[in-house]
Amino acid sequence: MSTADDVPLSPTPRSTPRRERERAQSERAALYDVLDASFLCHLAVVVDGVPLALPTVFAVDPAGRDHGGTLYLHGSVASRSLLQAPAQDVSVTFTVLDGLVLARSGFNHSMNYRSAVVVGRPRVVEDPDERLRALDLLVDRVVPGRAATLRRPTRKELAATRLLALPLHEASVKLRRGDPEDEDDDVAAGVWAGVLPLAVRAGEVVTAADAGGLAVPETVRQRAAELRAADGPG
Amino acid sequence: MSTADDVPLSPTPRSTPRRERERAQSERAALYDVLDASFLCHLAVVVDGVPLALPTVFAVDPAGRDHGGTLYLHGSVASRSLLQAPAQDVSVTFTVLDGLVLARSGFNHSMNYRSAVVVGRPRVVEDPDERLRALDLLVDRVVPGRAATLRRPTRKELAATRLLALPLHEASVKLRRGDPEDEDDDVAAGVWAGVLPLAVRAGEVVTAADAGGLAVPETVRQRAAELRAADGPG
Repeated sequence: MSTADDVPLSPTPRSTPRRERERAQSERAALYDVLDASFLCHLAVVVDGVPLALPTVFAVDPAGRDHGGTLYLHGSVASRSLLQAPAQDVSVTFTVLDGLVLARSGFNHSMNYRSAVVVGRPRVVEDPDERLRALDLLVDRVVPGRAATLRRPTRKELAATRLLALPLHEASVKLRRGDPEDEDDDVAAGVWAGVLPLAVRAGEVVTAADAGGLAVPETVRQRAAELRAADGPG
Repeated sequence: MSTADDVPLSPTPRSTPRRERERAQSERAALYDVLDASFLCHLAVVVDGVPLALPTVFAVDPAGRDHGGTLYLHGSVASRSLLQAPAQDVSVTFTVLDGLVLARSGFNHSMNYRSAVVVGRPRVVEDPDERLRALDLLVDRVVPGRAATLRRPTRKELAATRLLALPLHEASVKLRRGDPEDEDDDVAAGVWAGVLPLAVRAGEVVTAADAGGLAVPETVRQRAAELRAADGPG
């Protein structure tokens, strides 16, 4: 994803957290780090007058036609949220939880996290080639290399799928890491404080009941091994 | 949390997913299961005209004054989102990712998950006793029993904190579990399919640099052990 790493983010007032600006990072590399570590994102969109945060998978094309890379979301053509999104400014939030920050006071409790917000007006992807490419990226985002091992989408499947694109242009990244930040008096009182690291980890691959006897593909084995990562979060 | 388990949810058109109703579950127990398994939630709120999904910690009072239990969120009094939320209907989404569903076609790829959406107009919590109780619940949500081991909030900390309450009344739950659901032709083709289970797991507790030599409290040890859970997700 290095092709896009040198394009600076363009935070605007609405994508820049007013609070805790010191945590905001303007480097595109930080944005891609958050996206790489995310399994899903939350699309914030007003549906029938109520703001909803819809969990959904995503894909990123760092060399996409939109300035600085393209974020893809998809869903059913019958989805109200995907239907209403292109008529409004929406946002997409990525949240990676890295740990529970256990301070000496309730007030200073926090989370270690990496998060990103992308804001913009989504574009409905209509170009057939871009649609096929985005669908492959969506599969490969889950298990790298898997799209090439599957049959191609059918005409019926393509007709049932809506694809949205959002440029990775108006975005902001926030993160917190490290120890709790306690008041001097609380530290002096000799009370324990620390962090409980957290991470998403994989269990053993479960072969489907109707695929009994077939070997787990190498791409899936590799993804599982990556997500089991030796000693847990650190 | 059993006191609230017998209160039926009251899904309304806006809290009921129109798509995939078969996955919608109307039992309050299912809602509490999702909340119990969540470390954070996403508050969907329109801030300065743009819908945002803000990751935030939360607490639940199953015996709260609101019908069927109360959801608490908190933040700085300077937070634009918490300031603007009580003037509008908002929603809060809880998303627990349980696995990657690796089907025989891209189209049938999915996630195993449990999610909940609560919709309503938040109430600013003003009552001093309710505020103290909600702040304790917020700490105990992270590490059960921890609030009682900490000093009490100061007047200054209380003045800096805004607390919102939302009744757990208008809510819906969705989930997916189990094997991929593939087309008959794809199954017949003899291609592998399966699930890669995922779960949030804890690493080793990290004592803060300025708390060196102090023993990790029993409440934190227990929480860490619970989140390390033997054999990973299954």
